[in-house]
Amino acid sequence: MSDHAADPSHPRYTSLLQRKKLERALELGMLAHSAHIAHGRGEAFDYLLGEQTHEFATSALLHACAALQSAKHPIFSVNGNTVALAGKEILECAKLISCPVEVNIFYRTEKRMDALLTELKQINEEHNYNVELLGQQPNATIPGLKGPRAQCEQDGIFSSDVVFVPLEDGDRCGALRDMGKTVIVVDLNPLSRSAQNASITIVNEVSRTMREMVDILSHPDRIRSDIEFDNKTQLHRAIATIRKGFV
Amino acid sequence: MSDHAADPSHPRYTSLLQRKKLERALELGMLAHSAHIAHGRGEAFDYLLGEQTHEFATSALLHACAALQSAKHPIFSVNGNTVALAGKEILECAKLISCPVEVNIFYRTEKRMDALLTELKQINEEHNYNVELLGQQPNATIPGLKGPRAQCEQDGIFSSDVVFVPLEDGDRCGALRDMGKTVIVVDLNPLSRSAQNASITIVNEVSRTMREMVDILSHPDRIRSDIEFDNKTQLHRAIATIRKGFV
Repeated sequence: MSDHAADPSHPRYTSLLQRKKLERALELGMLAHSAHIAHGRGEAFDYLLGEQTHEFATSALLHACAALQSAKHPIFSVNGNTVALAGKEILECAKLISCPVEVNIFYRTEKRMDALLTELKQINEEHNYNVELLGQQPNATIPGLKGPRAQCEQDGIFSSDVVFVPLEDGDRCGALRDMGKTVIVVDLNPLSRSAQNASITIVNEVSRTMREMVDILSHPDRIRSDIEFDNKTQLHRAIATIRKGFV
Repeated sequence: MSDHAADPSHPRYTSLLQRKKLERALELGMLAHSAHIAHGRGEAFDYLLGEQTHEFATSALLHACAALQSAKHPIFSVNGNTVALAGKEILECAKLISCPVEVNIFYRTEKRMDALLTELKQINEEHNYNVELLGQQPNATIPGLKGPRAQCEQDGIFSSDVVFVPLEDGDRCGALRDMGKTVIVVDLNPLSRSAQNASITIVNEVSRTMREMVDILSHPDRIRSDIEFDNKTQLHRAIATIRKGFV
């Protein structure tokens, strides 16, 4: 696979490069094995979307950027795959918005938390982002969830009003909504519970999304807070696009 | 995950049990990491099919059983995920048809070949199947393919007239067809190159398929060789079923 990934002319170059990133993250202890399965599910939906950013995704992302910029306590909540595939872009966006990044993973182990925070710290230092990193010492609980996945930081996710949380689990998305937060998810499956329950759903691949988000936040004139936006309409457009692929 | 997988009342029990099987196979050295990604892609399509066996899949499987039974040199070609998820059923079917099973993997390493053949040998002995196991010493090459994935055994895949090969790669499916063989694939994505190029495509999850195949081969009166069958029609029905899920 390594030879394929090194050849930009290969038709699946981007996909193979992403797999290399996940492979590296797994070796560094950042991921549970189920992370690869989740990535494969995403690949299937991305394939159905033609592996491209659609207008409905850009529209949702512009709205998400406006929501984050007008928030009192915005935050990025990241899991293993997000850090592996778009760690640098997440920190770049957090710097542009001036908000913290909290590591919040489904199968929480101290080893994995350490590996993820070490990775983010290295990117932070290398690029002088100085973004506040949270998650190491959870001291609050998301109501309605059980076990380690309920844990978060009081001054982080718990107190936030707008959470940008790519690749989120459906239960946790619902629990964050129940706390009254604006929840922005990035999810390739427009039918998933996360996609259906979020305040704003960006139906797009996470690394394409984050690269576009860096561009939007670097050119704030692109953001308009007066745009009409209805999440259900966006989702229907995503579903219609996938249906069109099945001919 | 282990707690979830142990609880049959969990709505995703079957799916979690499959993941446990893959986890075990990975620990035993039977799989490349990309196997988990491939499984995730399959999960997405199975989700779109409602995680159930549809009539078009049973129809294709009945036709596949008839083709295997009337073949001169039928064979099962298996990869890591197939052995992990349905190793026992594969051997049971091979015994019922009286044909060999050849391990033939995309990312061939001796370590992985050993692990897969050891697993199959254990099942073989435990159940007294006495099925011939091939793949350890490839001495022939599938024309049109490069590298280790072209390798196969002269008295196995190379000389076969009907190959049952679940979860096959598109290139290899095409190369086997080019050799004039009847190629039967099990593939959850009806749009994939394997699905589109196979002689018979069973659009279904591999462990459900193999359990049903054991039942069919144990009740040969279910098999009718006079059934009308058109693979393109089956594929269209699978595609239509997935489209219906997107509403």
